[in-house]
Amino acid sequence: MKQSRTFIPTMREIPTDADILSHQLLLRAGYIRQHMSGVYSFLPLAKKVIRKIENIIREEMDAIEAVEMFMPTLQPSSLWKETGRWDSYGAELFRLKDRHERQMVLGPTHEEVVTSLIRDEVKSYKKLPLTVYQIQTKFRDEKRPRFGLLRGREFIMKDAYSFHSTVESLEDKYNEMMQAYSNIFSRLGLDFRAVIADGGTIGGEGSHEFMALSDIGEDTIAYSDASSFAANIEMAEVKVEYAKSKETLKEIVKVDTPGKRTIAEVADFLNVDPSKVIKTLIFKADEKLVVVLARGDHDINEIKLKKALQADEINLATEDEIKEMLSCKAGSIGPVKLPLDLKVYADHGVESIVNGVCGANEDDCHLVNVNPERDFAIDQYVDLRFINEGDPSPDGNGTIRFAKGIELGHVFKLGTTYSGPMKATYLDEYGKAQPYIMGCYGIGVSRILAAVAEQHNDANGLRLPKQLSPYDIHLVTINMKDEAQTKLSEELYHLLKSYRYDILHDDRDERPGVKFTDADLIGLPIRLTIGKRASEGIVEVRFRATGETVEWQKEEVTEKLQAFFG
Amino acid sequence: MKQSRTFIPTMREIPTDADILSHQLLLRAGYIRQHMSGVYSFLPLAKKVIRKIENIIREEMDAIEAVEMFMPTLQPSSLWKETGRWDSYGAELFRLKDRHERQMVLGPTHEEVVTSLIRDEVKSYKKLPLTVYQIQTKFRDEKRPRFGLLRGREFIMKDAYSFHSTVESLEDKYNEMMQAYSNIFSRLGLDFRAVIADGGTIGGEGSHEFMALSDIGEDTIAYSDASSFAANIEMAEVKVEYAKSKETLKEIVKVDTPGKRTIAEVADFLNVDPSKVIKTLIFKADEKLVVVLARGDHDINEIKLKKALQADEINLATEDEIKEMLSCKAGSIGPVKLPLDLKVYADHGVESIVNGVCGANEDDCHLVNVNPERDFAIDQYVDLRFINEGDPSPDGNGTIRFAKGIELGHVFKLGTTYSGPMKATYLDEYGKAQPYIMGCYGIGVSRILAAVAEQHNDANGLRLPKQLSPYDIHLVTINMKDEAQTKLSEELYHLLKSYRYDILHDDRDERPGVKFTDADLIGLPIRLTIGKRASEGIVEVRFRATGETVEWQKEEVTEKLQAFFG
Repeated sequence: MKQSRTFIPTMREIPTDADILSHQLLLRAGYIRQHMSGVYSFLPLAKKVIRKIENIIREEMDAIEAVEMFMPTLQPSSLWKETGRWDSYGAELFRLKDRHERQMVLGPTHEEVVTSLIRDEVKSYKKLPLTVYQIQTKFRDEKRPRFGLLRGREFIMKDAYSFHSTVESLEDKYNEMMQAYSNIFSRLGLDFRAVIADGGTIGGEGSHEFMALSDIGEDTIAYSDASSFAANIEMAEVKVEYAKSKETLKEIVKVDTPGKRTIAEVADFLNVDPSKVIKTLIFKADEKLVVVLARGDHDINEIKLKKALQADEINLATEDEIKEMLSCKAGSIGPVKLPLDLKVYADHGVESIVNGVCGANEDDCHLVNVNPERDFAIDQYVDLRFINEGDPSPDGNGTIRFAKGIELGHVFKLGTTYSGPMKATYLDEYGKAQPYIMGCYGIGVSRILAAVAEQHNDANGLRLPKQLSPYDIHLVTINMKDEAQTKLSEELYHLLKSYRYDILHDDRDERPGVKFTDADLIGLPIRLTIGKRASEGIVEVRFRATGETVEWQKEEVTEKLQAFFG
Repeated sequence: MKQSRTFIPTMREIPTDADILSHQLLLRAGYIRQHMSGVYSFLPLAKKVIRKIENIIREEMDAIEAVEMFMPTLQPSSLWKETGRWDSYGAELFRLKDRHERQMVLGPTHEEVVTSLIRDEVKSYKKLPLTVYQIQTKFRDEKRPRFGLLRGREFIMKDAYSFHSTVESLEDKYNEMMQAYSNIFSRLGLDFRAVIADGGTIGGEGSHEFMALSDIGEDTIAYSDASSFAANIEMAEVKVEYAKSKETLKEIVKVDTPGKRTIAEVADFLNVDPSKVIKTLIFKADEKLVVVLARGDHDINEIKLKKALQADEINLATEDEIKEMLSCKAGSIGPVKLPLDLKVYADHGVESIVNGVCGANEDDCHLVNVNPERDFAIDQYVDLRFINEGDPSPDGNGTIRFAKGIELGHVFKLGTTYSGPMKATYLDEYGKAQPYIMGCYGIGVSRILAAVAEQHNDANGLRLPKQLSPYDIHLVTINMKDEAQTKLSEELYHLLKSYRYDILHDDRDERPGVKFTDADLIGLPIRLTIGKRASEGIVEVRFRATGETVEWQKEEVTEKLQAFFG
């Protein structure tokens, strides 16, 4: 392709509205442009990369007998009402009406649509399992679109859905998908981890995220420094054997703690370690108030709490709700002498506290020498806290470390979360109607472009891996008015084309500096420069990854390129 | 691909809500399913065909240096207000608001978006010409979605846009596109014609449609029986030398024609040929009333009239508007003694009338022996009528015939229709800002699937051309419990796979009749049946196009397939 005839609007300046490096580089190298907040065009270079990403995904999906189809963007609201997501999805769901005032949804995901389709067509267990996928533009009305392609309102996804008659069959497909995803992200040249994850708004019974490791990631991954264990911090189980101090239990004493409200303030004022303070929180779980305890140095993980309470919704109780029950503010609550109808849940760490400190349920007062069981009852000990760096890995191997990650993909065991409410059933071998057991599996295709750009760049621009590069070779002719240069350029272009290389030929009437700067920004793996020594048949070669520059005789170009591309 | 693991929901019965054959067959053969009026899923077979269509389009676009990109579906309303299409596009434009109440459009086409993008990035004539294209889902809120994929609300389009600094450059690209389109539709196996067309809501200065010939087409094509001339009937120029009768001009006479209103009624009552009756219509053109005349046997073409009057909008005058000016109803209007300020436009055919008949501007009265020029003035003779079968071809070669067509593609010389109002300019070689001269070029990708299905079928199902067939070969194993059959099937499957054939293997536990009926519906070009004679290494072969059945020894399968596929 002649560079003069394609559309690669590079920029010299760093765009001020781009907050992360990948976003800046994709703008500067002319890969993308924004039209509205979170809405982008994929310009020719990006489109080529996206197609390469899609083809790798297709190959791996086809290899596990997932079949490609293409469902509509416009979805009837009625389906979303069947599952209740019409209400629960909230403001992120783009809604619109047609000319007949019928309400519709712009698909952010296709569980409802695919389940309704299969419900109408697959009535026998003999036709299961079935796995379908599509690659498609999705829509989500994000509150704060940001980080370029990482959190947009219109984006490209691969979404797959599997339908089964047994849990074992779902397990098998789920594991195949996990492997396919690992293959995909490896082939894409990404540094990633598969981590245990929460189902979020999709729901279901088990889930993994695939995370590209990156400091700009919005998620924290807890991983073992000695095993393959990795989990989203929201999901990492805490398995700690807490050492219980042998200290003698002392008499409980009430002390004044004027104006001391936070754990840090109280610990500091009373000169005790925060781990001896009993953090006491009151939550409202599905309209019922409960007390939740943790060690002062631990943070409550609301996802774990919600699961432990089997609640649909949990929120911290408001000041008013607390006041109605206790005569103090949130900073002075404690578990001693609470109203009897309040259930008390404690993280396992609380069990190890001896002669601890807690609020006295009286403003500006705390109790010291408080001991669980002796001074207050606990209904249930549960794993309620976030894991910390330094904790033992829950698989028993190694110590937990943290890393930041960008979510690339997400797989879910849905079970009957959708088929149940949608009454989507097949007939089993005894002729009995059973809801499909389902899985769903997503990959953020356009997000991958950003993640790859984030992991593969240097100060001068992008340097995408060979298998994703928009073109294989950047052929740069220094002076298009020099006959020797144009002749050698044409000759090489046609020769390399015949070897099936995809070539971007910089045939523009620009200064060499402009051409080289653009070439570095765009970041093709190898640049062949045809300059002053063209008449001698000499080509200057620059490797983008290393910056190494060498000279090749034109006769050796194809052989050396084959060695480079392998 | 194992048929048991993919999703091909065939139907035996003819769906009652499908009004044309291609729609019925695409439903019955399990290619598509409807979710809402005009909104479909492309099931695995259709998706494969669509990808083949897309790849042919890509190859031909790439060959003329059009570069692929991907613009967003969500478009800001502000751009549509710049061109005025926010108002003029009407109810067909899907509109929605985001969570911040900002108005957006679901793109039915991308002139505004692409022009705004290029406006921001291409500032010099040196970067022109530039041609970009995309393949994308489009949205149009059709009043009456029908004919399956032919007129849907969500559909796949290829849309290309070219930007130029000279009219000659646009002409060149337009001609290249015309050729590329001809290549595409030929490669797709379609019987089509390129016809002169109207710009419609896209606007511009010249346009051709590519029409698949089909009795169910909604457009009428006027073509010459002796040359390559073809035009949408709306656009076909009429070039007829009307013979003027030598009859003596007679005295005008008023006659009573009680209750006779239509041309046919009046001609019959007065015993004259309809060609002697002067059809007189009053139109309102941009708020101004005008009189339009044609021969009684000709029909007024409002598109020609609108162009002749250079009006933005024309409509037939209402009864009230006519009454206000004349004292009669529409059926008795005539051109004699009209108010002087009314302009009179006549089709050329009127000039040939001698001793004709027209309304008397008095209810239930007509004038006979009326002669143009003698009895009434004509401000302008223009080509205003629809062409008829039997008229001479306007290129001077042959006679006009009619055919019905399905619009597959449409190319437009836009000129500055969009760049003008959007102030989208480049700097010419003298540093002066000039609006881009533009072209745009569309192909209905999903509609092609329907058009191909409409042209390629028989009573038993589809028979798509080889190059579009979802799979190359249908391998049907009669009895999956028979070891000789499964062994030979496996052997052939892997052998043919190694020859790069794409194979659908019917491995289902179904009766042979079901398998054969499904195979005919799906319509792959060749079926290899492994049955009773598997142990002898004999394969039954059936060609879908001809229905011919032969037997091959397994050793000769690859050679014979190569001969078949070429």
